[in-house]
Amino acid sequence: MTRKGELDTPVPVVDLAVMEANLRRMAEVCRRNGVKLRPHTKTHKIPALARRQVELGAAGITVAKLGEAEVMADAGLDDILIAYPMVGPQKLERLFRLARRARIACTLDSVEVAQELSAAACRRGAAIRFLVEVDIGLGRCGLPPGDELMQLCARAASLPGLEFGGLLTHAGHSRRVRAPSEVEEIGRREGELMAGAARSLRVAGLEVAEVSVGSTPTAATAGAVPGVTEVRPGTYIFNDASTAALGLPGLTDVALTVLSTVVGHPAPDRLILDAGSKALSSDRLSANLLQGHGWIKGYPGLSIPSLSEEHAIVAVPPGASAPRIGEKVEIIPNHVCSVVNLFDELIGVEGDRVEVVWPVAARGKVR
Amino acid sequence: MTRKGELDTPVPVVDLAVMEANLRRMAEVCRRNGVKLRPHTKTHKIPALARRQVELGAAGITVAKLGEAEVMADAGLDDILIAYPMVGPQKLERLFRLARRARIACTLDSVEVAQELSAAACRRGAAIRFLVEVDIGLGRCGLPPGDELMQLCARAASLPGLEFGGLLTHAGHSRRVRAPSEVEEIGRREGELMAGAARSLRVAGLEVAEVSVGSTPTAATAGAVPGVTEVRPGTYIFNDASTAALGLPGLTDVALTVLSTVVGHPAPDRLILDAGSKALSSDRLSANLLQGHGWIKGYPGLSIPSLSEEHAIVAVPPGASAPRIGEKVEIIPNHVCSVVNLFDELIGVEGDRVEVVWPVAARGKVR
Repeated sequence: MTRKGELDTPVPVVDLAVMEANLRRMAEVCRRNGVKLRPHTKTHKIPALARRQVELGAAGITVAKLGEAEVMADAGLDDILIAYPMVGPQKLERLFRLARRARIACTLDSVEVAQELSAAACRRGAAIRFLVEVDIGLGRCGLPPGDELMQLCARAASLPGLEFGGLLTHAGHSRRVRAPSEVEEIGRREGELMAGAARSLRVAGLEVAEVSVGSTPTAATAGAVPGVTEVRPGTYIFNDASTAALGLPGLTDVALTVLSTVVGHPAPDRLILDAGSKALSSDRLSANLLQGHGWIKGYPGLSIPSLSEEHAIVAVPPGASAPRIGEKVEIIPNHVCSVVNLFDELIGVEGDRVEVVWPVAARGKVR
Repeated sequence: MTRKGELDTPVPVVDLAVMEANLRRMAEVCRRNGVKLRPHTKTHKIPALARRQVELGAAGITVAKLGEAEVMADAGLDDILIAYPMVGPQKLERLFRLARRARIACTLDSVEVAQELSAAACRRGAAIRFLVEVDIGLGRCGLPPGDELMQLCARAASLPGLEFGGLLTHAGHSRRVRAPSEVEEIGRREGELMAGAARSLRVAGLEVAEVSVGSTPTAATAGAVPGVTEVRPGTYIFNDASTAALGLPGLTDVALTVLSTVVGHPAPDRLILDAGSKALSSDRLSANLLQGHGWIKGYPGLSIPSLSEEHAIVAVPPGASAPRIGEKVEIIPNHVCSVVNLFDELIGVEGDRVEVVWPVAARGKVR
């Protein structure tokens, strides 16, 4: 039997009991709100965990890229939303191949992508479901609610081989708040804008099956708005310093940490850990609320002001308790999705006991 | 035959002619300076490229972690410096196993690590070579030149099973300059501080075989200082926006780009590319000289103010030339080492023709 403390480092470790509680809590929130849960599996990239989410009531899963969808379909997941526009002949070929063995939908926010998708469907005598992405404040993909969005939905829905599945948004700007109290308002507004856009489309005669919102911070509030049908949180399975900084949920609900070893103490005010940006990523999610590159469990006085690829540089204030060379510490990362993408395996533990080693099957599937 | 423009995206592409010129130029600089070149292979993580560096005159290679050393030794590289302190029973077991099949050295900056290494060597009836790390301004690992450094060298050199191989530093702070002109001074100071520290040790009766400096920006100037014996640049094989921003070498010497597709144009001032932080990393190396997350070749008016995991958000100023949905562009990343670590393969091209696909064999070897 392997103990957590004996693992070679750096290594990502998942507390199975905390993870299970996180999964059940979100499933319960969605049941209470009467919305479908379609978790974003980019956070874990592990088919066994996607299956657990479905066992606990998820209606299907979300993935970020086609390559992730292929991995999940290989493992038997059969209802997959690819929250990405499909562009290019290779992607279209793979998409329609995949759609023969699983229920697939993708997203789009332009007539150009809709036309290519339609042409590809027609060439194959196939049909594909799509959701139109709405920008409710993130400023990434999607059109804002309004005439142009309505026209795109109507136009794309009329193209042969395309099935209009509804509207989708992602309130990623909930990570940019200056105070946790702002998150709830963003979630409510997310739900209301989306429900409103769906109403306008229906008035115009379009059927809108799905009104899909989400992100871990806004899942509960956006999902509570009447008219919203589905939420797509991802991070909630593990949580991280970003979600904890937002106050929902708290630090005790963080299931994944990066176990790391102190390899140097070259100055009284500086420790070196063996986990750098290749283990923690350089992400500064929720940068307004977070300083540094992760939190060291059990050492509230310490911080990680900078990373190299293989080093965390830890600041040790005068008088602060600090681990010695050779000791292991657990780091709560800023952004857990990026951490998972850096490792070939996650280790699941019950207390201090290693229970399971999961290959991160969808790691690196950027295409 | 596959053309570069037909590759599915996002994908890292290496211009073989530019890479070869970069390799030859650094080899020539080192020959002229009369120093050994021990390239840091963390930049490419590919044994075939390490072998090419040795063919062109490298004395051996540098790696960041033991796992990278194992991959390189498996491929026949037989003189490997692991520029990292070895801590913990698994690492020590693997280190001494590796040392039976290749010439290995590691680094340290503490008595604690030296003692553990010595004990591990003695238990196995083995010996291991080590270099002591010196901090000449980066503020990461290493002791600054001075009495404490002298005492550590003397103490560690006296321990059974340890062979003192010399001094090593890394001038990573050359990335933090506010003007490219400061880099040369940092390099000269790097060489002088290290040569001076070696002289002091010799006066005290210690033999100092190697005085090892490096980093791509300072390799030429630090390597030109008398007393320096070895340089360890890594990035020079590919270069990136960071080395280009430092002015040495320039943009035309960047060999690796990330080919990416425009997947959306949701607003007149905003394009979306399919390469996000999972393709480009979130690294802001040389942040004083760089804005944004990489440069788009052929589109000097565009910038990448932010990334999500799977999206580059491209700012399009009024009137700027911009690619259309479906078009492919090449992104010069901020920090090429981190990009390589995100991909399973690099594609080598001659002009527009795909010539070779290299597995990134040492990707993710953080342990």
